[in-house]
Amino acid sequence: MKQLLALFFISLFFSETYSQKVNTQDSLTIRSIYDMALLNGKSYEWLDYLSNEIGGRLSGSIQAEQAVKYTEAELNKLGLDKVWLQPVMVPKWTRGFKEYAYIETAPGTSTVANICALGGSVATNDLGLKAEVIEVQGIEDLARYGRAQIEGKIVFYNRPMRADLIHTFEAYGGCVDQRYSGALEAAQYGAVGVIVRSMTLRLDDFPHTGTMSYGDLPADKRIPACAISTNGAEYLSSALKIKPDLKFYFKQNCKVYPDVQSYNVVGEITGSKYPNKYIVVGGHLDSWDLGDGSHDDGAGCVQSMEVLRLFKQIKYKPEHSIRVVLFMNEENGLRGGNKYAENARLKNEQHIFALESDAGGFTPRGFSFDTDDANFEQILSWKPLFKPYLIHYFEKGGSGADIGPLKGNAPVLAGLRPDSQRYFDYHHAESDTFDAVNKRELELGGATMASLIYLIDKYGVVNEVSDIKN
Amino acid sequence: MKQLLALFFISLFFSETYSQKVNTQDSLTIRSIYDMALLNGKSYEWLDYLSNEIGGRLSGSIQAEQAVKYTEAELNKLGLDKVWLQPVMVPKWTRGFKEYAYIETAPGTSTVANICALGGSVATNDLGLKAEVIEVQGIEDLARYGRAQIEGKIVFYNRPMRADLIHTFEAYGGCVDQRYSGALEAAQYGAVGVIVRSMTLRLDDFPHTGTMSYGDLPADKRIPACAISTNGAEYLSSALKIKPDLKFYFKQNCKVYPDVQSYNVVGEITGSKYPNKYIVVGGHLDSWDLGDGSHDDGAGCVQSMEVLRLFKQIKYKPEHSIRVVLFMNEENGLRGGNKYAENARLKNEQHIFALESDAGGFTPRGFSFDTDDANFEQILSWKPLFKPYLIHYFEKGGSGADIGPLKGNAPVLAGLRPDSQRYFDYHHAESDTFDAVNKRELELGGATMASLIYLIDKYGVVNEVSDIKN
Repeated sequence: MKQLLALFFISLFFSETYSQKVNTQDSLTIRSIYDMALLNGKSYEWLDYLSNEIGGRLSGSIQAEQAVKYTEAELNKLGLDKVWLQPVMVPKWTRGFKEYAYIETAPGTSTVANICALGGSVATNDLGLKAEVIEVQGIEDLARYGRAQIEGKIVFYNRPMRADLIHTFEAYGGCVDQRYSGALEAAQYGAVGVIVRSMTLRLDDFPHTGTMSYGDLPADKRIPACAISTNGAEYLSSALKIKPDLKFYFKQNCKVYPDVQSYNVVGEITGSKYPNKYIVVGGHLDSWDLGDGSHDDGAGCVQSMEVLRLFKQIKYKPEHSIRVVLFMNEENGLRGGNKYAENARLKNEQHIFALESDAGGFTPRGFSFDTDDANFEQILSWKPLFKPYLIHYFEKGGSGADIGPLKGNAPVLAGLRPDSQRYFDYHHAESDTFDAVNKRELELGGATMASLIYLIDKYGVVNEVSDIKN
Repeated sequence: MKQLLALFFISLFFSETYSQKVNTQDSLTIRSIYDMALLNGKSYEWLDYLSNEIGGRLSGSIQAEQAVKYTEAELNKLGLDKVWLQPVMVPKWTRGFKEYAYIETAPGTSTVANICALGGSVATNDLGLKAEVIEVQGIEDLARYGRAQIEGKIVFYNRPMRADLIHTFEAYGGCVDQRYSGALEAAQYGAVGVIVRSMTLRLDDFPHTGTMSYGDLPADKRIPACAISTNGAEYLSSALKIKPDLKFYFKQNCKVYPDVQSYNVVGEITGSKYPNKYIVVGGHLDSWDLGDGSHDDGAGCVQSMEVLRLFKQIKYKPEHSIRVVLFMNEENGLRGGNKYAENARLKNEQHIFALESDAGGFTPRGFSFDTDDANFEQILSWKPLFKPYLIHYFEKGGSGADIGPLKGNAPVLAGLRPDSQRYFDYHHAESDTFDAVNKRELELGGATMASLIYLIDKYGVVNEVSDIKN
């Protein structure tokens, strides 16, 4: 019993000593990171330029190339050890002249509908498309109605995002199959077009675009697909109840061009101790074209740039090489993320950690991690260091689309998790603009990311300790 | 040792049983509260009316009385056991015709400044006030400059809120003495007027009003006081560096009237087991006049009403009497809060808990508590129940101004703590309007409040257990 007690007190003593060490040195460094970000942060200024001087940055657009040049130039001002462009071929799809749509309840009695083409959709023919509408609650309804009821009609996918889920990304995940595969599936039943309820929890007038795919469908079988605003979807649905044979007209003018040359933008602080072991922090530089891509994902880009700037400002010299990567083409191809990972494999670059910010520039709540138990346990032991900053969410889960291809190379992948309640108000819509971003919320995100990367850099990852720490 | 182990396992067993009980029944009830609020909440609709149909509700105004009538009528629709108005005399101060101000760097060279009178300030005289300006960083600077440098001038308090503090209310607390007592203090040194930098962390063009006091200063010694927007403050400060003898002109037309009759609005579900023991939930119905008072504190009012509505909707019959109290006159007098507590004392009404929401309708993060250790420990034991809703902040600290006077009567006082990063962007300014409130964030607040009140109602408060539980 005495021995047990002794052991107990010894272990208390050691854990106390360890936590003291963590608490003083680390908490001071983390405090200095937050102070620098809140008092003298640069994320908001960078985002102002990206959003208001450049604007929406769809892959293959002039704006995407302007964003590459701008961020490369800004990274060059930070005094990093290396800044370079990593070439990647990207798809080029353009919306063309603004879409137009109406609901015709009787000849001469029409109501304009707010729509936009889904990214990757084909155009309607030159005079537009007019047809009857069949409303469904999801892809699984198609088989139930069958070709007899669907052929020649426009399929209207109207399953809303679930408002009772606390994590709005989960609600999005439960609906987005309608947008991504809705046209491909409806085409099998002879549908002539597709309307998808916008992926947002608000009732408003903004249509929300986003990527869709025809899979292997031959060109002549591809049918045009658009998103309709939630108010529009509610109106169309109730009009269909009164007048099931109403007609929907839409015209869209989108076009696919051959792939064009673009770039991931990369900056690096080379590690003082492990120059050949890499930590990546990034967001995606491309955005949809309707708004200016402030939340998705200008925010993640400037926060990632800010991580390296903060390290320079507080004179922290990382042991591992820290790279900021601004990925091109997350929205409609993931070519940048794939290219970066492919290059890393070709060059045998060992990555220990990758962190992505692609969930909006809102108040950060924590991170989700794609890693093993040992690494997750180590990360959980750092939780008290984040408490003063109200960062409390440390859970296993997804990380980020662009860093996903690093899986198998980096043992720990993570995603910043900001408050998600407002995210889908703006996501892929005209309303995703700079004024929807709060400076403090944005800067807190960058500081939170820098703090985690500081800890990973200092303590390494668990399963490579022997490898990394000698 | 064996006995110790046995004890250990027994205690494990009991705590397991206890937590099982908590986890199933309570977590189901709490889930149903959140579901109801997110799928079928009423806070947003009520706030729309309060904000857009009524508007700013300064004590003594027509709008304040409209808000009393509206909320009384809405509470009457909920099928509560009692709804009544509690009379309270309130001060009546009016802004009058819009203020006007300019910075004159040379005769004929002026720049308009965005100002507003502070609540309670006297007017300037009819032709306005023009004088030189002395900039200070706080009240403590007055003694340093002394009467020689201050007399005949306008004192310009320009200490900004500290951006490095994570809790913005703390930053507010560190500055607000300039607004509250700035005129009283400056008058002692012969100042003729006061300009206060607006209490916000943003740089923008909105002046933020708020209450101020002349203490016992005789009427003829009272000097007019205004708030200037942060952009205006920055401009004035830099202009003063170039031209220290520039002049500031302002005219304001505010006026104090005799006290008028007003009301707290109270609704009650009478307790099934302890009808004479009370739980209070509330916000304040009055607001400043510049915006429509959506965040401050329309949000807190509708969330408090929602708590009782949610209980009725999920058919929860509380054991204690639950009262919603919409307090009148928090902003410039606290008469409603004082009156409620005074009445409770007179009638010997025993209150076990009071909760206020007065920190904006943003994503709720948790609560702060003004209570003893035993009660706080009990509340902490409920933390896991809130985890699915990302409610993590349970700390000792302040509660709310209106329920403060219940201290000594209620053993536990609490304040809802929403995310505070954006609060002072809107606080007491023209920008505090309905469109700055997100429906989901608002409804989550009401659900979070209802969940805590459910637990308090069910388990009671610790220090009165014997009293309450038999």
